[in-house]
Amino acid sequence: MTTPRTDVPRGLAGVVVTETSIGDVRGAEGFYHYRQYSAVDLARTRSFEDVWYLMVHGDLPDAPRSAAFARRTAAAREVPEAVRGLLPALAATGGGPLAGLRTALSATGAALGLRPVYDLAPEERAEDALRLCAVVPTLLTALHRLQHGLEPVAPRSDLSHAANYLYMLSGQEPDPRHARAVEQYLVSTIDHGFNASTFTGRVIASTGADLAACLTGAVGALSGPLHGGAPSRALDTLDAIADPGRADSWVREQVLAGARIMGFGHPVYRTEDPRSRMLREIAQGFGGDLVDLAVAVEQRVEAVLAELKPGRALHTNVEYYAGVVMELCGLPREMFTPTFATARVVGWSANVLEQAQDGKIIRPAARYTGPTPPRPVPAL
Amino acid sequence: MTTPRTDVPRGLAGVVVTETSIGDVRGAEGFYHYRQYSAVDLARTRSFEDVWYLMVHGDLPDAPRSAAFARRTAAAREVPEAVRGLLPALAATGGGPLAGLRTALSATGAALGLRPVYDLAPEERAEDALRLCAVVPTLLTALHRLQHGLEPVAPRSDLSHAANYLYMLSGQEPDPRHARAVEQYLVSTIDHGFNASTFTGRVIASTGADLAACLTGAVGALSGPLHGGAPSRALDTLDAIADPGRADSWVREQVLAGARIMGFGHPVYRTEDPRSRMLREIAQGFGGDLVDLAVAVEQRVEAVLAELKPGRALHTNVEYYAGVVMELCGLPREMFTPTFATARVVGWSANVLEQAQDGKIIRPAARYTGPTPPRPVPAL
Repeated sequence: MTTPRTDVPRGLAGVVVTETSIGDVRGAEGFYHYRQYSAVDLARTRSFEDVWYLMVHGDLPDAPRSAAFARRTAAAREVPEAVRGLLPALAATGGGPLAGLRTALSATGAALGLRPVYDLAPEERAEDALRLCAVVPTLLTALHRLQHGLEPVAPRSDLSHAANYLYMLSGQEPDPRHARAVEQYLVSTIDHGFNASTFTGRVIASTGADLAACLTGAVGALSGPLHGGAPSRALDTLDAIADPGRADSWVREQVLAGARIMGFGHPVYRTEDPRSRMLREIAQGFGGDLVDLAVAVEQRVEAVLAELKPGRALHTNVEYYAGVVMELCGLPREMFTPTFATARVVGWSANVLEQAQDGKIIRPAARYTGPTPPRPVPAL
Repeated sequence: MTTPRTDVPRGLAGVVVTETSIGDVRGAEGFYHYRQYSAVDLARTRSFEDVWYLMVHGDLPDAPRSAAFARRTAAAREVPEAVRGLLPALAATGGGPLAGLRTALSATGAALGLRPVYDLAPEERAEDALRLCAVVPTLLTALHRLQHGLEPVAPRSDLSHAANYLYMLSGQEPDPRHARAVEQYLVSTIDHGFNASTFTGRVIASTGADLAACLTGAVGALSGPLHGGAPSRALDTLDAIADPGRADSWVREQVLAGARIMGFGHPVYRTEDPRSRMLREIAQGFGGDLVDLAVAVEQRVEAVLAELKPGRALHTNVEYYAGVVMELCGLPREMFTPTFATARVVGWSANVLEQAQDGKIIRPAARYTGPTPPRPVPAL
């Protein structure tokens, strides 16, 4: 090898593998943004489709572009005929919802005849990304319904992305407050700095593979427990505590047993997670016993953690109130992580499109540390 | 972020992202090895199954272990019932063979109910890897036959991995010399240092995702034109030249037009590619017009390249004679890269199993280089 070797920390922690203009997380400030705009401000004020447009096209749309883009995404929600016929068998195959999405998205890419990203003009790549992102909620809800013995519900182009998602899941037009709450959650989770699934999508894109190869790989990475996590785990915490009066003793038991408290702590934020703050407000807007329990438990858990783990500044992370909000909006717990995927696929696609402009394959090195070769091959 | 930042070269060239005891490429010496054993020596003397065992279990098997492992892999060739039923529809969906494999392998993982790698004992992970690697040839050949209007051919457990692959493709028991030539090619391409698909598999594994998520992502990366390449392109070169007497003028034209000569040049080897040397010998063992043409064209192309690009030491790469050998053994050209995948999946799985022992998520960083946030969100 003539290439000089560079050793980097395990897990590539802090290793800057690319430049990006898509967004950033400022952990010390409790702030993250999409192309300069505070992601939380976007979630409070704009539609999912507008922010999708921002991620892919680089700036927020004006009113005519906003309407045109929303129409384009709505028109792309239908699953290609060939894949629609596959879905009952895929649902019967087993595996979790992300395994089902991985297969169905891969098949959709084949059915759409997607071509290698380097063979496409930027607008063709963006069109491939739009079609795959638009179809993800349709695939996920169809597989979910089929696995529960229900017929899939066809998408409705007169509903927003978020409202249509809830509609396809339940078969009922959702309460507009639920649709808006889920929409705000979806906007807030489109992207969040660099992570394993985003990086996976970019590595695959760097080879010139088609958009479906990139996004299928990213879904696979998201399915890993260390990455996708599970917003439902935070609800399991609330279920286990059940009564705010039990929070102190429950947390002490867990921490003394060395267990992590699900829904608390984040590797990057040193402040409150800005997504958590927004989602708490949304939950409080709904109110009710679950919200009261969540707020009370949050306060008790933070107090006990501050006492037992001083200096660690452990706050709720996005999982905690995301789980509460999705539960309030009627989403089944097994669909929490898949719902996250319906938003994150837009972030992945923006990253894949950015990577495709680079044109260089990502091909790192490994250091062989076994015994020195060669060793003679023994005869059998 | 409290993690210190490290900037690395674009494409991670030369960046050592992990330690490995699986193997290494020594480009200056024209040598590569699998766990200390020269890969070419392994290809000359051992079966594909023995080297598969070596990759996964760390050393070559003795005779009883060799026989037992071959029986285990043969018994795992059947496609799960649920996936077998999907294959006709998948074949009809369209897309190339690697897109079909991506979908079918993903579905197989779901049908087998694979669990996250971090939830499994090492022997359970190895079992998952074995089942997926064993089924890849069956999936690929079934999809290929279905796309050509033919019934899939069920695997035969009395044939070796390579012979059974050729048998499932054509429906005829292969000439033993063809089976052995393909087997040697397969052994020689199980692994070859770090590359984008291997890295993709390891990034996905680092999240704890299941084996099918890892290998599906790797297939996606391999499908990128900058990575998987196409051994059939080298044959296209031979087709275009057709007569060794035309080699000089053809190469001059191409080089002067700035075109790359397919089948020549390698990013790592500064010598002859050791795989190329072995495959040339295998081809010459068969002999015939195609081989005579290939050898004559190789000599003329190298001479002209040495004259036009002095100091570059451009030799044939693995694609050149791999294409010739696969053509001689009756493999259809569209199956050249998929055939490569049937071997490389074993290398990926060895890497995924090694990564799963590490336990740390691979999560690099990106540097935001857009305009400074925040920017106020405009009302629509």
